[in-house]
Amino acid sequence: MAKIPYRFYLSEDQIPRQWYNLRADMKEQPDPLLHPGTHKPVTTDDLSPIFCEELVKQELDATTRFIDIPEGILEMYKIYRPAPLIRAYNLEKALKTPAKIYYKFEGNNTSGSHKLNSAIAQAYYAKEQGIKGLCTETGAGQWGTALSEACAYYNLPLTVFMVKCSYEQKPYRRAVMQTFGAEVIPSPSMTTNVGRAILQEHPDTTGSLGCAISEATEKAVTTPGYRYVLGSVLNQVLLHQSVIGLEAKKAMEILHEYPDIVIGCAGGGSNLGGLIAPFAADKITGKSNPRLVAVEPASCPSLTRGKYAYDFCDTGKATPLAKMYTLGSGFIPSSNHAGGLRYHGMSPILSKLYHDGYLEATSANQTDVFEAATMFAKIETILPAPESSHAIKAAIDEAIKCRESGEAKTILFGLTGTGYFDMTAYTSFLEGKMNDYIPTDEDLVPGFNSLPKIME
Amino acid sequence: MAKIPYRFYLSEDQIPRQWYNLRADMKEQPDPLLHPGTHKPVTTDDLSPIFCEELVKQELDATTRFIDIPEGILEMYKIYRPAPLIRAYNLEKALKTPAKIYYKFEGNNTSGSHKLNSAIAQAYYAKEQGIKGLCTETGAGQWGTALSEACAYYNLPLTVFMVKCSYEQKPYRRAVMQTFGAEVIPSPSMTTNVGRAILQEHPDTTGSLGCAISEATEKAVTTPGYRYVLGSVLNQVLLHQSVIGLEAKKAMEILHEYPDIVIGCAGGGSNLGGLIAPFAADKITGKSNPRLVAVEPASCPSLTRGKYAYDFCDTGKATPLAKMYTLGSGFIPSSNHAGGLRYHGMSPILSKLYHDGYLEATSANQTDVFEAATMFAKIETILPAPESSHAIKAAIDEAIKCRESGEAKTILFGLTGTGYFDMTAYTSFLEGKMNDYIPTDEDLVPGFNSLPKIME
Repeated sequence: MAKIPYRFYLSEDQIPRQWYNLRADMKEQPDPLLHPGTHKPVTTDDLSPIFCEELVKQELDATTRFIDIPEGILEMYKIYRPAPLIRAYNLEKALKTPAKIYYKFEGNNTSGSHKLNSAIAQAYYAKEQGIKGLCTETGAGQWGTALSEACAYYNLPLTVFMVKCSYEQKPYRRAVMQTFGAEVIPSPSMTTNVGRAILQEHPDTTGSLGCAISEATEKAVTTPGYRYVLGSVLNQVLLHQSVIGLEAKKAMEILHEYPDIVIGCAGGGSNLGGLIAPFAADKITGKSNPRLVAVEPASCPSLTRGKYAYDFCDTGKATPLAKMYTLGSGFIPSSNHAGGLRYHGMSPILSKLYHDGYLEATSANQTDVFEAATMFAKIETILPAPESSHAIKAAIDEAIKCRESGEAKTILFGLTGTGYFDMTAYTSFLEGKMNDYIPTDEDLVPGFNSLPKIME
Repeated sequence: MAKIPYRFYLSEDQIPRQWYNLRADMKEQPDPLLHPGTHKPVTTDDLSPIFCEELVKQELDATTRFIDIPEGILEMYKIYRPAPLIRAYNLEKALKTPAKIYYKFEGNNTSGSHKLNSAIAQAYYAKEQGIKGLCTETGAGQWGTALSEACAYYNLPLTVFMVKCSYEQKPYRRAVMQTFGAEVIPSPSMTTNVGRAILQEHPDTTGSLGCAISEATEKAVTTPGYRYVLGSVLNQVLLHQSVIGLEAKKAMEILHEYPDIVIGCAGGGSNLGGLIAPFAADKITGKSNPRLVAVEPASCPSLTRGKYAYDFCDTGKATPLAKMYTLGSGFIPSSNHAGGLRYHGMSPILSKLYHDGYLEATSANQTDVFEAATMFAKIETILPAPESSHAIKAAIDEAIKCRESGEAKTILFGLTGTGYFDMTAYTSFLEGKMNDYIPTDEDLVPGFNSLPKIME
């Protein structure tokens, strides 16, 4: 057989035309979202003021296995998809490993990350419904950038609440969103009740993702004709992101490959959930038994050290409650933690898979992550986002284990994005100024104390 | 026939395996480089202390039509090539033009620009020859980034003299080079004689490309085992960049297309020379007659307002003399000019083609360029580099002419790179703070006065 190429692209007509809904194959369903007031499972009516109709349907639909991707979404997918499946020949050689390492690279679009896959879907459905504009939040900035790009394409106004420290530290990230026409507001802000309340109590706060979510949802439900969109955690997001796993699986099939291990970084779970979806299906249905591995930062360890409990998705405690692995909506990751993956919770679908033993989880220290990132940049000549580099670190560890055991395993990991806007963190690492932060058990107590009391 | 896809990728085995040397088909040769002391044509011996042997050979070889790309270079090309040929369906629709617009996108590699095509070749030959390290300069930063990436891959030490204003205004660009392991020095610096002399005379200077070239060449020839490399202007660079045009032409052939107009931005000429190479051959040999168009900034108009004369390639007047369209090595573009395309001269090959009527040239104001760039970003969802956006502006103008005349011309332009590190300029444009600068005839006088007196 011909040598497998460095970069393998499916042809345009091989782009998946349906998303895959993993819930349809799960033996047990994730627990439902609960209304924050009544603690009853949320209904379509509860969610409709927040999300577009079609997205509410997708959020609550646990039974339809495949959902058609509308032509209007496929048209924009075709601008940057299929994303390449890359054989890491150079990394394999550098590690002297018998393992075969593949990665699905989702950073080759202007927004620079996989977030665009769901941004396009959410913007499209909003436009189709005649929504006047969207509100969202962004932390490290990948989601805000992706949504700005999608909203520019579909000609839809967008307001982004950007966590204040990120707004100030990443002016270029902000400028990209503005170039795409988005309004970008540092959060907390004086434009919302929740923002004003937080600023009154903590005038010097640099913000948090949970707080920005609270502001964005408030603005969305109080602005006529607006809706709120979220880039991770939700079932609908994992559905859209299944395009990553579907393409990766199809490409590997064509190359006569199947992964023994599938690795993804995990913040809210959007990339990991999408990447593993078709492989998790194989595992659940017994077709095959790949290891599925989540890698999270040691400084924000929701799966590895969190509780499986109902929790709010935001700091303002206004959103529905989700059953998930969580550090508590009151948990605030250390300010020395670079990049994304700062969310206190984890996608309910992934939480359930982890709880039921289908998914493993591990955590990585940030200096180890940046060491892996700089090594990877030099060898594979892609400058990875800090988030993605958690998966790189774990993949390298697995490849080294293969070198030691002599096993030629096939490793697939998700390279979710590029690090062009994270050079401050890279510089801090290169200058030896980066520290690791691992919360003590005591540090986690305030977060756990913020968990709501729910009768289950 | 099936609809032409948005992004067309050749397969890996369709990557060109030979570069094309346009000089072999030119009816008249560009005038030779002259020794700066004797004003005699330079010899292999003259150039060998500066460049690697193989590159000297390529620089002086005007007769070999096709030159094999070594396997060790192809291996790295395969990491990011073939680069896509994109059909700008969305732009066509937005402009309501009957024209078919294609662009060859060279920004889909980590360095973010086409400069990588030559950086790889130059680093490879240096490594093969046992060179101990390389020196270069960088202005806007694309070349320095590309060379850093290539040197990391081939494990070769690199010193980059970065024009001081760029070093200070683009710390992230600098950080990317450092992540790839390069030493980055702001120019002028105290590490070279020429740098010290310039600093003594102008202690507050923010540097210039010509000055950084002087420092890099001095450092290269005075450091044992080191050589100098340059990212544009030279014949060898245009040779390596021919991969752009060869891929574009092959892809269009497969799609049963041929351009009526080929458009590229022009600073030193590396992208334009590579893009047009096979089309210029068709034009010279009479096979076809596409229009070939160079677009330069109105603030640095070497082709449209320069003189066709022998000039130094650097400010320090130490390099060989090249016959080219030039504003004089003493010309310094206005500081309000954003991005690259600031070089005082133009590739001798392109200068000759322009002089002989094969190449057209036009200039664009920077606010018009950024207006085209932001429009393009929203519609085609690629954030273009300011340099590349000169070509976008000209392509849009041609497409609008087609709308007016009703002609369905096929336009091909080069999208050389991404603008992630140019967000300061974008912000300045978005905030209405960007100005145009068009030098008066009087402004050009000091540059022309710096031209050397040569008996021709």
